[in-house]
Amino acid sequence: VPLESCLDLILRKRDGGALSAREIETFISGVAADRLPDYQVAALLMAVFFRGLDADELSAWTAAMLASGEQVDLSHIPGAKIDKHSTGGVGDKVSLCLAPLVAACGVRVPMISGRGLGHTGGTLDKLQAIPGFRVDLDVAHFREQMATVGACLIGQTDRLAPADRRLYALRDVTGTVESIPLIAASILSKKLAEGIDGLVLDVKVGRGAFMKDLESARELARTLIGIGERMGKRVSALLTDMDQPLGLAVGNALEVREALEFLGGGGPEDLAEVTLALGEEMLRMGEEIEGVRGGSSLSPRQRLVRAREDGSATRKFQEIVAAQGGEVAALEGRGRGLPAAPLQEVVRSEAAGWLVQVDAAAIGRAAVALGAGRGRLDDVIDPAVGLILHGKLGSRLEAGGPLCTVHYRDPGRLGNSLIWLRKAFSVGPAAPPARPLIFERLGNA
Amino acid sequence: VPLESCLDLILRKRDGGALSAREIETFISGVAADRLPDYQVAALLMAVFFRGLDADELSAWTAAMLASGEQVDLSHIPGAKIDKHSTGGVGDKVSLCLAPLVAACGVRVPMISGRGLGHTGGTLDKLQAIPGFRVDLDVAHFREQMATVGACLIGQTDRLAPADRRLYALRDVTGTVESIPLIAASILSKKLAEGIDGLVLDVKVGRGAFMKDLESARELARTLIGIGERMGKRVSALLTDMDQPLGLAVGNALEVREALEFLGGGGPEDLAEVTLALGEEMLRMGEEIEGVRGGSSLSPRQRLVRAREDGSATRKFQEIVAAQGGEVAALEGRGRGLPAAPLQEVVRSEAAGWLVQVDAAAIGRAAVALGAGRGRLDDVIDPAVGLILHGKLGSRLEAGGPLCTVHYRDPGRLGNSLIWLRKAFSVGPAAPPARPLIFERLGNA
Repeated sequence: VPLESCLDLILRKRDGGALSAREIETFISGVAADRLPDYQVAALLMAVFFRGLDADELSAWTAAMLASGEQVDLSHIPGAKIDKHSTGGVGDKVSLCLAPLVAACGVRVPMISGRGLGHTGGTLDKLQAIPGFRVDLDVAHFREQMATVGACLIGQTDRLAPADRRLYALRDVTGTVESIPLIAASILSKKLAEGIDGLVLDVKVGRGAFMKDLESARELARTLIGIGERMGKRVSALLTDMDQPLGLAVGNALEVREALEFLGGGGPEDLAEVTLALGEEMLRMGEEIEGVRGGSSLSPRQRLVRAREDGSATRKFQEIVAAQGGEVAALEGRGRGLPAAPLQEVVRSEAAGWLVQVDAAAIGRAAVALGAGRGRLDDVIDPAVGLILHGKLGSRLEAGGPLCTVHYRDPGRLGNSLIWLRKAFSVGPAAPPARPLIFERLGNA
Repeated sequence: VPLESCLDLILRKRDGGALSAREIETFISGVAADRLPDYQVAALLMAVFFRGLDADELSAWTAAMLASGEQVDLSHIPGAKIDKHSTGGVGDKVSLCLAPLVAACGVRVPMISGRGLGHTGGTLDKLQAIPGFRVDLDVAHFREQMATVGACLIGQTDRLAPADRRLYALRDVTGTVESIPLIAASILSKKLAEGIDGLVLDVKVGRGAFMKDLESARELARTLIGIGERMGKRVSALLTDMDQPLGLAVGNALEVREALEFLGGGGPEDLAEVTLALGEEMLRMGEEIEGVRGGSSLSPRQRLVRAREDGSATRKFQEIVAAQGGEVAALEGRGRGLPAAPLQEVVRSEAAGWLVQVDAAAIGRAAVALGAGRGRLDDVIDPAVGLILHGKLGSRLEAGGPLCTVHYRDPGRLGNSLIWLRKAFSVGPAAPPARPLIFERLGNA
């Protein structure tokens, strides 16, 4: 792409015009091959931030990013291959719960996940709290495990959607991350490269989420569903609450333990509700894709509940862990063999009343301050540290009653974490209004 | 400036916030020192394109660009130092007329000019049609000539407002040229570096100008005047027509000849009207700055007219040419010693009627096609080529009557030029509505 033609694209987009599919393909392949100067790419990204991309442009953009790399071929595996993607939150261990649960019910789950950054956690970091667990497996292993185990959870490889990685790195330093079309194209290009038939989205809404309000969450969901439709993939979305953390555990090993509880039929109610709702979406989507609606005498919800009760979900998780090199023994006795922090500190409420705020973003920051997450990409994570909430929004509290227990290693880091925790909780004189956990469902399926 | 803090500025501007004077100073000095990555500068420029700069930001931006380089000190020279800046047009030889005319009336004119680019001409290219004329003089020469001759016309040096040069180069390839605050800061930072007391702007409006409509021209003028006010400089502006070329000559040596005619009291009426109006502004501003309103018994307009009639304007031009190494003899006999093209072609009207369109942009392109201007910065200019209009908007034409005479050297280039000229002229069955030459005056003076 000569400088002049990239300039043409910048000017057109800047002035509110549309780019052709061919132009977008040339641009994205130029980005992938590092043939375009960063300053022109940055200028175009900022113009897209202000002007957006229409439906045609978005499909072309996504398809070009997908085409910039390898695409996993899972066509040798029978049945529906469905992934779930979350826009990220605090205490969000849903992938650890959902992948084995849904795979135990017969839907294949090819899942390429990310790291935590900022105040949010990442599925890969949580999985790596299990001793030996490998997330850096190659595509050949991924395909084989999909066939044998039916679920595989790995990290990004350099070969899938490389244009996205380059673009993302530039967006991160040029203030162009928060663009719904760019976010949507980034998510879908990576997910479509996994070889999926369908995708269920968990679009988080609230102060701990990327999308702070329902309207922007809806816009992102609709955008993702729209691209999916044009690219012939089923996509549906649940908009779920991320004003407070999901479940009670925040921190990698602590969250693995909570996921184990869930898989065995226990765990916090909100975690179960969100996971089961997403699981139902995936099973229903699987039936539609396979064309065998009602193939089982049980409803999707009943099948999910049964897989928790009969131990098959837990066994599937153990299978996944074993297949990916993790120590299955570490999971026994509710994860007794997982890393544990040596020190604990209980944070207590000064006043009596009702818990009217549990700020997910502040809780996330508190966990990062302990070493459970990354402030920068090269920070090293301590899998053992984190915190356990003692109550959720609306809980009744006595004066001096426990708000949360901090699991820490380094007393120097505890102090910073406590600063965030003081901001996180508010106790009021009356119960807060109830807030829905699942706001709405959107879908093309 | 670390990456993070530049990112902060991008995000704030992107989201409609304001940058502090200190932040702008850090940013601009970072640009000047090449300490910031181009992609972050490009992203911020595009955010400024969309969000603008408020009055405080603009003054800080201009002051920082000014401070990035040397500032010419003309304080040793008594009297008002006033420059004129044109936003650029076709056939715009006003600087060649105005600088000697105003200097002959006693106001000092320090003028740092630019090259032609795109369809517009540049004062430096016109001056260099005079054999030997040097525009690459240094600041020491500039200061001395200002003291002795009272006017000096040179090109940009690397030492004045270097941040502007870097920014402009990046704007040119990132689609961020057409931003009124960025244009205004660029103009004023360079002009203030000349050591001026005041500035008169000729903001061109119409299809041959950068500003196509009165509203955007007004906005640019107001923006420039506003910055000038905050920086303690008198600035006023005339909004003048550039729908058709100014005068009849387009092309470097041809325009020098037309300027010589003007200086001797002749030349096209529209050229005289615009030049005299700008000259009046400069003389009035000079009186205000010197505090000697009415120091002469003649009005500013009368003094300008006298300088054309008594030969002093022509002599001042000869003085400037001599001081800058040009062959004064080449100017004799209406510029007989200036380069002349070997070939001429008359373009004629097919129909009879009235000239209802003389598209300045198309005429400019026709001249560039002949070699009178640059399509790219490294194109070489032929000073001799160009064209002479035979009529202006509203002229009565016979069928077969002449529209213009093309002065050319290379028959191969004539063809391309004629394609533009066919588009430039329209002949209609009735006289077009009269269009004002000077739309309005704006000023802080």
